[in-house]
Amino acid sequence: MTVVELIERKRNGGRLSAGELRALMQAYADGSIPDYQMSAFAMAVYFRGMDDEEIEALTAAMLHSGRTLELGHLKLPRVDKHSTGGVGDKVSLILAPLVGACGVAVPMMSGRGLGHTGGTLDKLESIPGFRTRLSLEETAAQLESLGVAMIGQTQEIAPADRKFYALRDATATVEAIPLIAASIMSKKLAEGLTGLVLDVKTGAGAFMPKLDDALRLAKTMIALGERRGCPTVALLTDMDSPLGEACGNALEVEESVHCLRGEGPADLRAVTLALAAEMLLVVGVATDATDARARAEHALQSGAALDKFRALVQAQGGHPGVVDNPVAILPRAPIRERVVAGRAGIVQRVEPRTIGRAIIALGGGRSKVDDEVDPAVGIVLHVRPGASVARGQSVATIHARDPETRQVAEEALRQAIVLGDEAPARRPLISHRVTVRGVEELPFGGAS
Amino acid sequence: MTVVELIERKRNGGRLSAGELRALMQAYADGSIPDYQMSAFAMAVYFRGMDDEEIEALTAAMLHSGRTLELGHLKLPRVDKHSTGGVGDKVSLILAPLVGACGVAVPMMSGRGLGHTGGTLDKLESIPGFRTRLSLEETAAQLESLGVAMIGQTQEIAPADRKFYALRDATATVEAIPLIAASIMSKKLAEGLTGLVLDVKTGAGAFMPKLDDALRLAKTMIALGERRGCPTVALLTDMDSPLGEACGNALEVEESVHCLRGEGPADLRAVTLALAAEMLLVVGVATDATDARARAEHALQSGAALDKFRALVQAQGGHPGVVDNPVAILPRAPIRERVVAGRAGIVQRVEPRTIGRAIIALGGGRSKVDDEVDPAVGIVLHVRPGASVARGQSVATIHARDPETRQVAEEALRQAIVLGDEAPARRPLISHRVTVRGVEELPFGGAS
Repeated sequence: MTVVELIERKRNGGRLSAGELRALMQAYADGSIPDYQMSAFAMAVYFRGMDDEEIEALTAAMLHSGRTLELGHLKLPRVDKHSTGGVGDKVSLILAPLVGACGVAVPMMSGRGLGHTGGTLDKLESIPGFRTRLSLEETAAQLESLGVAMIGQTQEIAPADRKFYALRDATATVEAIPLIAASIMSKKLAEGLTGLVLDVKTGAGAFMPKLDDALRLAKTMIALGERRGCPTVALLTDMDSPLGEACGNALEVEESVHCLRGEGPADLRAVTLALAAEMLLVVGVATDATDARARAEHALQSGAALDKFRALVQAQGGHPGVVDNPVAILPRAPIRERVVAGRAGIVQRVEPRTIGRAIIALGGGRSKVDDEVDPAVGIVLHVRPGASVARGQSVATIHARDPETRQVAEEALRQAIVLGDEAPARRPLISHRVTVRGVEELPFGGAS
Repeated sequence: MTVVELIERKRNGGRLSAGELRALMQAYADGSIPDYQMSAFAMAVYFRGMDDEEIEALTAAMLHSGRTLELGHLKLPRVDKHSTGGVGDKVSLILAPLVGACGVAVPMMSGRGLGHTGGTLDKLESIPGFRTRLSLEETAAQLESLGVAMIGQTQEIAPADRKFYALRDATATVEAIPLIAASIMSKKLAEGLTGLVLDVKTGAGAFMPKLDDALRLAKTMIALGERRGCPTVALLTDMDSPLGEACGNALEVEESVHCLRGEGPADLRAVTLALAAEMLLVVGVATDATDARARAEHALQSGAALDKFRALVQAQGGHPGVVDNPVAILPRAPIRERVVAGRAGIVQRVEPRTIGRAIIALGGGRSKVDDEVDPAVGIVLHVRPGASVARGQSVATIHARDPETRQVAEEALRQAIVLGDEAPARRPLISHRVTVRGVEELPFGGAS
């Protein structure tokens, strides 16, 4: 069986056996299959899809192309959260220490921002000194001593996925649910978890804006986790507007600290607590939803989550003063200017992709994988959909490096914040809960 | 506009402008776009297709990536034929000298065999000394002196097509009608023609077995030719069983010489004369179909076509004795054995793909582009669909290099020649005539 025949079979709507997919990914990882055959294969998968067995085989092949975190000796339950990404999504920074403070190990492996979406690693690295490149051994040791570690995907984790993802990014074959699911899950299953919670975003700023696609992605990932012995649950949460107020790396760390202190925006707090409760439930630390919720809220209110964050920052080389005085420690942009409303009205939309592009224009995001990011710049929103504003009222503050980029960001902001006269329809913040048993609609927006 | 955005747009069912396609092919030809992006693009085209303007722009981009034959000074009409290929299809060897003998220049550029189909260049090169690698200048000079030249695609003709075709062959993206049409027509339009006739095969042994696909391909190529000022006509001819009796390079040259002498199989003669008449008509040398047919038959019967073939062989360095005594001049396989029918019956099918694979097993064809071919080996069929055979009657002769390959070929032949008890349905040899004005069904099998 040649590679061309495998591509042709997928192109014609056929399926590949587990052995064929394993051989294909192995040969691709070791360089004996060229990129030009894998990109044609990826495009055929985009159009023809994959069945559950194929996705599982692909995930296993990518997972086994590298090393895994060996955490069996910890004896603690081990849980992580993965978000499909959005604008203003700093949940991981609050969630990891919060759940770590509840007696569960959290080996959290995150990514960098690309396109309009931000990335947890970039946010953490705005803390002076913070190291995200821990070896697997350092990570295991820190989990043992502290119960939480926040790291990047090392070279050792799923190298076949790294190579394949870079190729897909260059060939317009990213948006294929089987490939997205296998890519995410091959990394998460390498963390040696006993449970996983997925935050699948929907709405204008999400990677998969449509509810149907988001649900399909959630179900696919859940099936993958469960079949490999890792209980997996997903919440579908709203990314029709940015989460919280701060967008931009250091600004989001500052907001995360506020939230860890029990302050900060209500939507950010609600999504974080809902995910935390799911994490405690999925590994069986909490007895039921009410108990899970109570434990999560207690970790926040008691200061245990904040203390865990301080210890985490210190353990990974970051300046611990960020917890007590973030503004003094985090990098600050030289220009900080308010943008005011040109008319009175009700905020209809805050377009997350436009905000994301404004962050890139300010230098705080990436169009290409190897772009440098400026940690200090960003936008703090003062309004959200449904808010009434007067003419001249400030709607956002721009944090810029120079007047030129500030100007571009202001123009983007004026497009992003749409004013009208009617109250906009309200979207639930947390719309669905998906488990291996099915989909539950949350009509009151879940835990918010 | 990045390449990824162009791929994504095609993937999503959008269209590319002529300028975008030109830039894409140019950048691919000069190496500034990698193979892995072009193969993903080709797969997206496989699924999404291209509209007429896109196909024309792609064709023009490939055509202009190289040089073209400059034949304007000839003052003669210039016509070529292209066949989509099959088993036993040696028509070009008869047709080029035949039409050349009718006062029309025939700059015929052919390809090599690949997979189950044979190639004119391989057949010609079984004539000792025959050179198919003429430069464009040599080709032009020979057309002036002789009126006919039979050459391979030089490095100078449509280099972007050569590179793209090799990539498609390695990525299961060959079978896309827009890409097939653009590939064929970019080469044919480089020949400086004033008319072109297409022999589009249908049936089990054809590249596009289904009538609908074959018609779509014919219409697409005709539109391309006509829009670029080259009158183009297509005949749809049957490739449900091999054409003629001989399959294999030297054996097909021998059969072509018989046909040029006015002998040889009736189906081969019928297809050749029908195509010859179309070629004379499309460049306006004949006044109508009857006149065209009469001129073609006269060239065959008068010996003018045979004389032109002799001159062609001589001009291109081949042994001219092949015309008078092909068996003595052409390479002969050491083993020549008849295969006899195991039962009495009526021939239901002669499966061309199985015959083609038997030729490859004998060493006379190619599985891969760089395989060497043995010119001597092959199969001569003694029966065709509808023939009654007695038990023990010989149905074919195998020409083999050694007993092992003879054995494999015999087993393939026994699968290929299917005997039954009822007379099989008859298929028209020439089923449709397609012009820019429309499709004409030929219920009596056309010119046969």
